[in-house]
Amino acid sequence: MSQANPQTATLTYDPETDRPQEECGVFAVYNAVDAGVLTALGLHALQHRGQEACGIATHDGSRFHIERYLGLVGENFTSPDMPQRLPGKVAIGHARYSTQGASVLRNVQPLYSDVRGGGIALAHNGNLTNARVLREELVSHGAIFQSTSDSEVVLHLAAQSKKTKLTNRVLQALKQVQGAFAFVALVNDRLIAARDPYGIRPLVMGTLGDAVIFASETCALDMVGASFVRDIEPGEAVVVSEDGIRSERFAPAHPARICAFEYIYFARPDSIIGGRSVYEARKQMGRQLAMETPADVDVIVPVPDSGVPAAIGYSEASGIPFELGIIRSHFVGRTFIQPTQDRRDLSVRRKHSANAAVVRGKRVLLIDDSIVRGTTSLKIVRMMREAGASEVHFRSACPPIKFPDFYGIDMAGRAELIAANMDLDEMAAKLEADSLGFLSVDGLYQAVCGEARNDANPQLADHYFTGEYPTRLVDHDRDLSAKEFQLSLLVDA
Amino acid sequence: MSQANPQTATLTYDPETDRPQEECGVFAVYNAVDAGVLTALGLHALQHRGQEACGIATHDGSRFHIERYLGLVGENFTSPDMPQRLPGKVAIGHARYSTQGASVLRNVQPLYSDVRGGGIALAHNGNLTNARVLREELVSHGAIFQSTSDSEVVLHLAAQSKKTKLTNRVLQALKQVQGAFAFVALVNDRLIAARDPYGIRPLVMGTLGDAVIFASETCALDMVGASFVRDIEPGEAVVVSEDGIRSERFAPAHPARICAFEYIYFARPDSIIGGRSVYEARKQMGRQLAMETPADVDVIVPVPDSGVPAAIGYSEASGIPFELGIIRSHFVGRTFIQPTQDRRDLSVRRKHSANAAVVRGKRVLLIDDSIVRGTTSLKIVRMMREAGASEVHFRSACPPIKFPDFYGIDMAGRAELIAANMDLDEMAAKLEADSLGFLSVDGLYQAVCGEARNDANPQLADHYFTGEYPTRLVDHDRDLSAKEFQLSLLVDA
Amino acid sequence: MSQANPQTATLTYDPETDRPQEECGVFAVYNAVDAGVLTALGLHALQHRGQEACGIATHDGSRFHIERYLGLVGENFTSPDMPQRLPGKVAIGHARYSTQGASVLRNVQPLYSDVRGGGIALAHNGNLTNARVLREELVSHGAIFQSTSDSEVVLHLAAQSKKTKLTNRVLQALKQVQGAFAFVALVNDRLIAARDPYGIRPLVMGTLGDAVIFASETCALDMVGASFVRDIEPGEAVVVSEDGIRSERFAPAHPARICAFEYIYFARPDSIIGGRSVYEARKQMGRQLAMETPADVDVIVPVPDSGVPAAIGYSEASGIPFELGIIRSHFVGRTFIQPTQDRRDLSVRRKHSANAAVVRGKRVLLIDDSIVRGTTSLKIVRMMREAGASEVHFRSACPPIKFPDFYGIDMAGRAELIAANMDLDEMAAKLEADSLGFLSVDGLYQAVCGEARNDANPQLADHYFTGEYPTRLVDHDRDLSAKEFQLSLLVDA
Amino acid sequence: MSQANPQTATLTYDPETDRPQEECGVFAVYNAVDAGVLTALGLHALQHRGQEACGIATHDGSRFHIERYLGLVGENFTSPDMPQRLPGKVAIGHARYSTQGASVLRNVQPLYSDVRGGGIALAHNGNLTNARVLREELVSHGAIFQSTSDSEVVLHLAAQSKKTKLTNRVLQALKQVQGAFAFVALVNDRLIAARDPYGIRPLVMGTLGDAVIFASETCALDMVGASFVRDIEPGEAVVVSEDGIRSERFAPAHPARICAFEYIYFARPDSIIGGRSVYEARKQMGRQLAMETPADVDVIVPVPDSGVPAAIGYSEASGIPFELGIIRSHFVGRTFIQPTQDRRDLSVRRKHSANAAVVRGKRVLLIDDSIVRGTTSLKIVRMMREAGASEVHFRSACPPIKFPDFYGIDMAGRAELIAANMDLDEMAAKLEADSLGFLSVDGLYQAVCGEARNDANPQLADHYFTGEYPTRLVDHDRDLSAKEFQLSLLVDA
Repeated sequence: MSQANPQTATLTYDPETDRPQEECGVFAVYNAVDAGVLTALGLHALQHRGQEACGIATHDGSRFHIERYLGLVGENFTSPDMPQRLPGKVAIGHARYSTQGASVLRNVQPLYSDVRGGGIALAHNGNLTNARVLREELVSHGAIFQSTSDSEVVLHLAAQSKKTKLTNRVLQALKQVQGAFAFVALVNDRLIAARDPYGIRPLVMGTLGDAVIFASETCALDMVGASFVRDIEPGEAVVVSEDGIRSERFAPAHPARICAFEYIYFARPDSIIGGRSVYEARKQMGRQLAMETPADVDVIVPVPDSGVPAAIGYSEASGIPFELGIIRSHFVGRTFIQPTQDRRDLSVRRKHSANAAVVRGKRVLLIDDSIVRGTTSLKIVRMMREAGASEVHFRSACPPIKFPDFYGIDMAGRAELIAANMDLDEMAAKLEADSLGFLSVDGLYQAVCGEARNDANPQLADHYFTGEYPTRLVDHDRDLSAKEFQLSLLVDA
Repeated sequence: MSQANPQTATLTYDPETDRPQEECGVFAVYNAVDAGVLTALGLHALQHRGQEACGIATHDGSRFHIERYLGLVGENFTSPDMPQRLPGKVAIGHARYSTQGASVLRNVQPLYSDVRGGGIALAHNGNLTNARVLREELVSHGAIFQSTSDSEVVLHLAAQSKKTKLTNRVLQALKQVQGAFAFVALVNDRLIAARDPYGIRPLVMGTLGDAVIFASETCALDMVGASFVRDIEPGEAVVVSEDGIRSERFAPAHPARICAFEYIYFARPDSIIGGRSVYEARKQMGRQLAMETPADVDVIVPVPDSGVPAAIGYSEASGIPFELGIIRSHFVGRTFIQPTQDRRDLSVRRKHSANAAVVRGKRVLLIDDSIVRGTTSLKIVRMMREAGASEVHFRSACPPIKFPDFYGIDMAGRAELIAANMDLDEMAAKLEADSLGFLSVDGLYQAVCGEARNDANPQLADHYFTGEYPTRLVDHDRDLSAKEFQLSLLVDA
Repeated sequence: MSQANPQTATLTYDPETDRPQEECGVFAVYNAVDAGVLTALGLHALQHRGQEACGIATHDGSRFHIERYLGLVGENFTSPDMPQRLPGKVAIGHARYSTQGASVLRNVQPLYSDVRGGGIALAHNGNLTNARVLREELVSHGAIFQSTSDSEVVLHLAAQSKKTKLTNRVLQALKQVQGAFAFVALVNDRLIAARDPYGIRPLVMGTLGDAVIFASETCALDMVGASFVRDIEPGEAVVVSEDGIRSERFAPAHPARICAFEYIYFARPDSIIGGRSVYEARKQMGRQLAMETPADVDVIVPVPDSGVPAAIGYSEASGIPFELGIIRSHFVGRTFIQPTQDRRDLSVRRKHSANAAVVRGKRVLLIDDSIVRGTTSLKIVRMMREAGASEVHFRSACPPIKFPDFYGIDMAGRAELIAANMDLDEMAAKLEADSLGFLSVDGLYQAVCGEARNDANPQLADHYFTGEYPTRLVDHDRDLSAKEFQLSLLVDA
Repeated sequence: MSQANPQTATLTYDPETDRPQEECGVFAVYNAVDAGVLTALGLHALQHRGQEACGIATHDGSRFHIERYLGLVGENFTSPDMPQRLPGKVAIGHARYSTQGASVLRNVQPLYSDVRGGGIALAHNGNLTNARVLREELVSHGAIFQSTSDSEVVLHLAAQSKKTKLTNRVLQALKQVQGAFAFVALVNDRLIAARDPYGIRPLVMGTLGDAVIFASETCALDMVGASFVRDIEPGEAVVVSEDGIRSERFAPAHPARICAFEYIYFARPDSIIGGRSVYEARKQMGRQLAMETPADVDVIVPVPDSGVPAAIGYSEASGIPFELGIIRSHFVGRTFIQPTQDRRDLSVRRKHSANAAVVRGKRVLLIDDSIVRGTTSLKIVRMMREAGASEVHFRSACPPIKFPDFYGIDMAGRAELIAANMDLDEMAAKLEADSLGFLSVDGLYQAVCGEARNDANPQLADHYFTGEYPTRLVDHDRDLSAKEFQLSLLVDA
């Protein structure tokens, strides 16, 4: 556990929605004649975890087949000849999140490499906290890197392992990496699924007839009609082969500390994460929020879509009516040209619009899942007032975000995190809200875990709010102590 | 008013969502330096009315500029050079709905033609009921048609008018057409906006500083920050020019009979149609439905997204909790390959998935805005049972749909309309629902108009439910009586 | 016959090659089960006449099928499902030339229109000299135009004809138009091929088994394995139907005055135009040029590819060796970025490069088919000197071009035509050539026709050199006398 | 030197043209402010060496910038913002040849890797004959490969070198590879250009002001206006840096044995290879051919375009007229649908057509640069007869091709090489030619080198004709002796 210096975090995130960005979703199938097709469906169910790119690798018993694309699964893996193009009974797939920057095809997963003993295809959700240090070591011994992806480090470690069996070399590689990850790999025709030592990223196992399925979330099991079996345990690798299903530990047993933001925002509401319904957790956050920060208002208005379950919960607990006071457009596209004349800021309206009929003359309570920089929150408060709300109050269904993430979540740097730089009154003034409230950390724990935070051994990865990181931050600490390590950055089209 | 023989209706609609399809949205700006940019924003707000294609025409004082594309506004009208490409202070725009068939660029609006006295660009939402008869007459006198669009008939009629002034020729053309339409046209640098004699399609006027705006719905006025002024009246044409704003009547005054489906499904919930909030009308349909067809259930589950307001209303009136028991995916794409093995039907899951946590072991009441063929409804009922619901009841927030539309709405033919072919019990059995209920026609009127149906002079276009069409169906009747008229159908890429 | 005022000609042409641009090629098939496929092959053979766009229309006995694309035939009409997409035993096709400006799909041919009695699809090579006057008349009577193509005038005239039979209406339309054209049309399942009254544009008939074929050039007959039958005569329309082949005259008999530039540059060398081999005509121009303007040089170097046959002829007649002193790149693309440093003009090298091994230290005679503005000629002269040529002489295998064309050829305006503005010495100085020579007009006639020019009744359309236009220039004269006619120009994407 | 067993060669080549396929062209610039722009121009001049893909890497003093595309240089490197996207004063570029199979972006060069000490970008023309053996060794020590390109082996060898300086590590890598290559690399901001120990592939150096240029052929120097300095010597590496130009030997001095096919077919005729004009060499082959295999014919007809210089030479030596009896289409595209009716083979006509006017009734001698399988030759002979030739004779301006290449040239396997399987009479019968002749090996040497073959130390790489390979064929021999080595082939999109 370590306390990061957040000033050095330089991660990017999507400023237009002011939401943190998940890094990816993974899916894998063992022993289904239509493994590639099932994987496409499973990835579609995980598309909310990443829309930048997607890829599927299969093994047909003798060869690998890989296709990787920029864009959505439904745009790239629906061709009628897909079963022929991606044959085989084992498959892994990956959905990757969307950044602002130039998308880079060579970073799209699954990554693949020929190694001694065959080939490895690998897909990975999360972030390694010692990837750069490992990379530096590997490079100093002659390894060459084609991508900037963390996952390539795992390929190199497996390739350089002295173990005989290829699966054992992958397991040995997993022992060397730190951080948060859900990981699926094809090692020739064997399938390995592994989860980081603290279980920060989710990963579940299911069955579909004779097939074994792994997925980041249960909603992907549901999509293909598979039955949930169990969560992969922290530090566990499951190897599936002709010899059956074998569980291996590559790290000591430890209770899972699932990332709190899976419950707050990332996961799909119909998923079950760590045995708890995401939807129910969110509703419960709303109920808890109603108890902790009541508001004397006429209507509860969710910021769609992620604020809806908490708003339903708040409405139930408070008895104040729930109304769709903000309508979200389902049509996306590039940013529109701003009109040239001196007019009100129209940018937020591209995605959200006020439903004036339900807010005019009303005291409105806006409920959102979280507040990162507060920029969008401010625009929405103003939009409510322009639509005629007499008062506009704001509640965040999670605690104040004060610390950046190092496990695969893109969020604003600390300098931009509103709660890291202002107290409650300052924030309310900044957001132009008549009142502002956040769920407490204990309220979050009550809502998600049904009990208070165990400070000695917290049940969640909650560093966003507490600054307590579950793992050492090797790369991050190294950056502070020495500047000698610098990649030749490659701009590639 | 006439009773159609629905067996001959051969319109197409989207079978995957089992929803009727709106034909279009229109937007227009007079006297704004960034007329083209504002029109793009306005069309984006109307994108729910049509996603197949979009187009914008401007006039820069001496010339027309037109761009038309297949696809969304946000994909096609966001280039930084758009103000240069579409210069001028007047503009009209059009968003067109999505069909299954090959999209045909030559049908994309605005249509344009050189005529005596200048040029006319025209965009149109709706359907003319005498277009084919008029077209036949025009062709027999030597007119040639380049598109299969109704709107081209209006261009020809204006071109052949003997009136001197070009705007008067357009008005004369409007007197000759029948049906339902909201219509905007650039006649050189003049702007005309017109609405059909019965006001079946909506059309509103607003202002933004010195600019005059017209739009299919008020949500587009909100998008650009314009203020609502009034509805265009049935049979009214508004001509805006350097001489100011002039109202002309091309048909006798008649109270508006707005298409009931604008309230039920088409319009955006934040729009005000005919002075009534669409969102409130939908919630009221839900409340009315709760009174007319109560259900002894544990949870109210909307079919997202269009069933949500009615479900909120039903929940309020009944006191039964509202829950998101179905999660809708926001990621679209082509139809996925079906897995080859013998498995449950996965097609509906691409768009909807069950939130098992809130339906397992529960008596569930599904609320949808309407039921057309019932195919999707059946899949959703089954999905609820697979997710563990102990009972599944179904309610439609509109009356049984028994008759096709001829005013621009694509819906199934009568043979496919479930309510046209089965009684309530048969439908419930077909949908495998434990109970089924529909809003009554009078309940619909109470919800939308706050009063019962005026049978002598109905307040809405409600032919879907009653078979009473507000206008003669000239083309349709002609088809029945004589087969001599047949276009050489043109398949064009 | 009339003398134009060339200052008002505002046609565009390709400045990068300094070559006039042909307007199109046409192809048609009657009575072949694979009419669409044959048409694609035929258009490919005519691709040199136009690379901007291409289209094919077929009639399957009851319906028309049309596909039109921007780009090459080989990129757009090679899909395996083409026979299904373009079924029917009759077909017409069109290849359109490449302009710099935005390509406009609505101008791509074949044009189509529903008319009384069925449909007409039409493709056309050439230019009508009274199209704008006719268009103005049509518009004043209520016609509306969707394209800016001359060909749409023909559709309107046919549509407005009072004749009963549709083919007769097309023939009546042909009587009203003036100018130069080769014209193929499907009138329902009948095929019409027609050539302008002076035979300025070429059009030939052939047979392939039971099928009748029409094409702009014989090379397209060769491509599909058809046998040449005869030229269509000036003012003749050939109608092919179930009743057989019928010849109709729509203009009085007149000997053909084929456009001289077909022989000089446009037509493919393996075509036979007006009974004369294009290749032999070009070689003969070179021989004649050798006699008229001998040069004391070491090597003959053609400007590739169009100067090659004349250079072979010049070499044969003079005994001076023919050498490939300029190499042409077959790889095209957009214009490259010019290097920023102060260097020699590299633009010409993208298409041509000097073969220094054969020009270094040599007295070089460059032979080109023609000189329009002279800009490229100058660059090539300089390129030869940079490659080490001791002297560079230049010969044009056609006479000096002094007058623009109005029959479908894009060329520089008169102000840009070098020979219209300079005498021989000035031109030689401008081109930096040690000597310059042009073929004489009589030499051209000797080469092409084997006899001198018949001044009373010239055998060719030679207005480029003589200013004598074979037809009245109605639109052109009208432009000079009155400015009241002005289209609202439409910029369309 | 070794004798290969050609039955195991499984290289692909373009069957439609029946020509061997070059593997690539390279270009590099040191010390020009517009290095990227110059490289694009240089690659355009080398486009004949590869049309599948192209890429450019620059180094701006601190970082690398790389763009790689499928398609032509003129389609991908002409954007106005290219100087900004590819900044820096050093650049390397690569043009890659076109295969039938799926194009694979990850194989497109320049390849790049971070290594200890910085980065290496590398582009390479040719083929390593021990790449698979080296790769196997590298993989067995833990290296992972991302591409199937030979060039990646060089990156790994450099990365694993124990030398301190990065340039020295690249030089050490070059010592380990065998085969044929022209090689340019950016090692941070240093530029290395190297040529294989036998000089099989060409590589030249030039200057342009203060800039140093390297290119596969001199025509690329001409394109950018650079002056030729000298050939890179076999086994020489030239390192250009701030310290100046340094020549290093990584292999013992050996006279160049340039690939004979560079003279016969690959190189552009305006290039100077090994001090000899390619155009003059080809003409001389034609003259030699005329002496060795005279023909009693009326016309000499080249198979365009590669047969033209030899045909000019043959015509000069024999006094028989040279005529363009075959016209080549410059318009390419996908293979057309074959007409369904029983007709003559039309496939060859898509690219070539007979110019009947010059062959009808004539005894024709066809001259081509080479004959690989003979399939196209047969079609052309038949096309001449169909066009009316009374006799058709055929001559190949190079000796019979009996052995495959292993140095980067795709050609048919030995089983398909007509000259490897038939004697002269059989070939003439197969080609349906009235007579057939090939240039002798000594004739080739006389034409290219001006002297007979030095059997002890041949002046060219002539294994195609003699089976004598200049280098050991390590991978190839290994394949024969042992099958234990097999890559997991990866199909990637």
